[in-house]
Amino acid sequence: MDIEKIMAEKSHLIDKEFEAVLKKDEIENLHDAIWYHMSTGGKRIRPLLAILTCEALSGDSKKIIPFAAACELLHNWLLIHDDIEDGDRVRRDLPTVWVKYGMPHAVNVGDYLAQKVYELIIRSKNYNVPDDVVVKLIDAMITTSLKTSEGQSMDMNLRNNESPTETEYISMAIHKTAYYLTVPMIGAAIVSDREDLVDKIVDFGMNIGPAFQITDDVLDLTEGKGRQEIGRDIKEGKRSILVVHCLSKCAPSEKEALVDILNKTPEDTSDNDVLLVKEMFEKHGSIDYAVGVAKKYADKAKTISDDMPDDLRSVLDFFADYIVKRRK
Amino acid sequence: MDIEKIMAEKSHLIDKEFEAVLKKDEIENLHDAIWYHMSTGGKRIRPLLAILTCEALSGDSKKIIPFAAACELLHNWLLIHDDIEDGDRVRRDLPTVWVKYGMPHAVNVGDYLAQKVYELIIRSKNYNVPDDVVVKLIDAMITTSLKTSEGQSMDMNLRNNESPTETEYISMAIHKTAYYLTVPMIGAAIVSDREDLVDKIVDFGMNIGPAFQITDDVLDLTEGKGRQEIGRDIKEGKRSILVVHCLSKCAPSEKEALVDILNKTPEDTSDNDVLLVKEMFEKHGSIDYAVGVAKKYADKAKTISDDMPDDLRSVLDFFADYIVKRRK
Repeated sequence: MDIEKIMAEKSHLIDKEFEAVLKKDEIENLHDAIWYHMSTGGKRIRPLLAILTCEALSGDSKKIIPFAAACELLHNWLLIHDDIEDGDRVRRDLPTVWVKYGMPHAVNVGDYLAQKVYELIIRSKNYNVPDDVVVKLIDAMITTSLKTSEGQSMDMNLRNNESPTETEYISMAIHKTAYYLTVPMIGAAIVSDREDLVDKIVDFGMNIGPAFQITDDVLDLTEGKGRQEIGRDIKEGKRSILVVHCLSKCAPSEKEALVDILNKTPEDTSDNDVLLVKEMFEKHGSIDYAVGVAKKYADKAKTISDDMPDDLRSVLDFFADYIVKRRK
Repeated sequence: MDIEKIMAEKSHLIDKEFEAVLKKDEIENLHDAIWYHMSTGGKRIRPLLAILTCEALSGDSKKIIPFAAACELLHNWLLIHDDIEDGDRVRRDLPTVWVKYGMPHAVNVGDYLAQKVYELIIRSKNYNVPDDVVVKLIDAMITTSLKTSEGQSMDMNLRNNESPTETEYISMAIHKTAYYLTVPMIGAAIVSDREDLVDKIVDFGMNIGPAFQITDDVLDLTEGKGRQEIGRDIKEGKRSILVVHCLSKCAPSEKEALVDILNKTPEDTSDNDVLLVKEMFEKHGSIDYAVGVAKKYADKAKTISDDMPDDLRSVLDFFADYIVKRRK
């Protein structure tokens, strides 16, 4: 499956939905800020997952297009607010919305986009999706946003924890990452009248979620994730799986040094600090460990998809592999 | 009509809805922050408006309870984010959420509550509200939140405007205040199967909205609105109707002095600055002017309610009067 080719084919359908609901430049520091952010791009994994799941289940992806676009908008709303919460200044190699438009406008822009998520779902009515199904789609989106928000809270709380456990980390990753990677597939099952598959899809998603987050943790240290720097997570003091593993393995003196660096503000954390932490991770095999755990979750996901209809299984297995193999 | 007595009778119904959807203390800095904020109180005008409108139209207010609670939650979500955006440190005589829990958590808490607004509306199904009506209620809430967010943006933009017009001010007030004061009545008309009244209710709301906002502008200078200080709007540089009127009447030298004070940061604005501005408002009759404009809008609202069914008219007229006569 050539994911970039398929996304190129489907992307204009998602763009059309955005153009239908997002105004152009009407109110300064709002509509311009939204289009600024949207034009920075993104991988669009979530809408693609929705469309391909829908095609695999019913052969007709029209009805899922507004929901697929809503999943992408959810992602973008969350990024705008996450960047404020984490103090991130660069996203997709460009200044974040709060840096360009100021924090007050950026909070408001995120709030506005959050509402547009639901406006998009209601637009499904234009594609003959009946009211009861629309309510189910909205309900799924609410559950997802709430879990994600709980996960964001857990993530911030973990940064005050000097001995985070892997169990705490995985619970955070499931709340913060897994639900909103899963909701595109759930939405697709709902519009395809295959709600019998939702429980299995959730099982699958609760495994690719951690695989996705752990891969993100590793990429932050190896590729930089469009932030024009390596090790941003270390600067922010995030309790990544690398940190969790390393803290559990290293000597007390190393632990003290690691926690000291993590507790510095991003501005006070030097590139040398990042290098020191990276060396500690390498010494204790934390990066290899993380890659292994991500693969374990992806493999578990693939055993769950074994019970799915054939067409769906091949889509899901492709994504499970893609999520751990991606380089951005 | 004894508004405090009626609210005391109905308030537990709203509290029950909150208790049904808001978790207690499960995740630190999230659920505790929500209950901290909710326990600071509030006038609860919006749920009361929803319930009384519904009773006036159909005699049965059960079906509107979740939506009424959703209106109050919308209000609380917006306050949490507005306080961040405006840098307000005190609300209802207590520290604001961002002051108590930090800005990053406060952004996340607001996002979480925003989702709970929609969860509450979907709960209407428990009261036998059918799916098509639920979708209409959600749609009305989306429109409202979007307008409010546009209004917040306009409000912030106006602060860079040295010659704001009354037209710009009223447009801002309609976006920021009128829609979300109107949506409780719209929701009540929808669940009461009286959608024929929605256009008139909107007309009514677009008049009590500015009346409410203008009264707020005046109260900020005379009563302090639970912020433990007088003239907070001046410190924040808000283009209140008092500012708009005064700037249009005063001499160029006074205008320069007024704009200088408004452009100071809240921390740099002294109590003496506030006093100077208040004297300028008094000299040019801006406070009396504002009270007069608020009354004009309230009176206009009451001519619109003349066409409404009798029971509804008396509720609406009561609110139109209450809005301009309130002291907090």
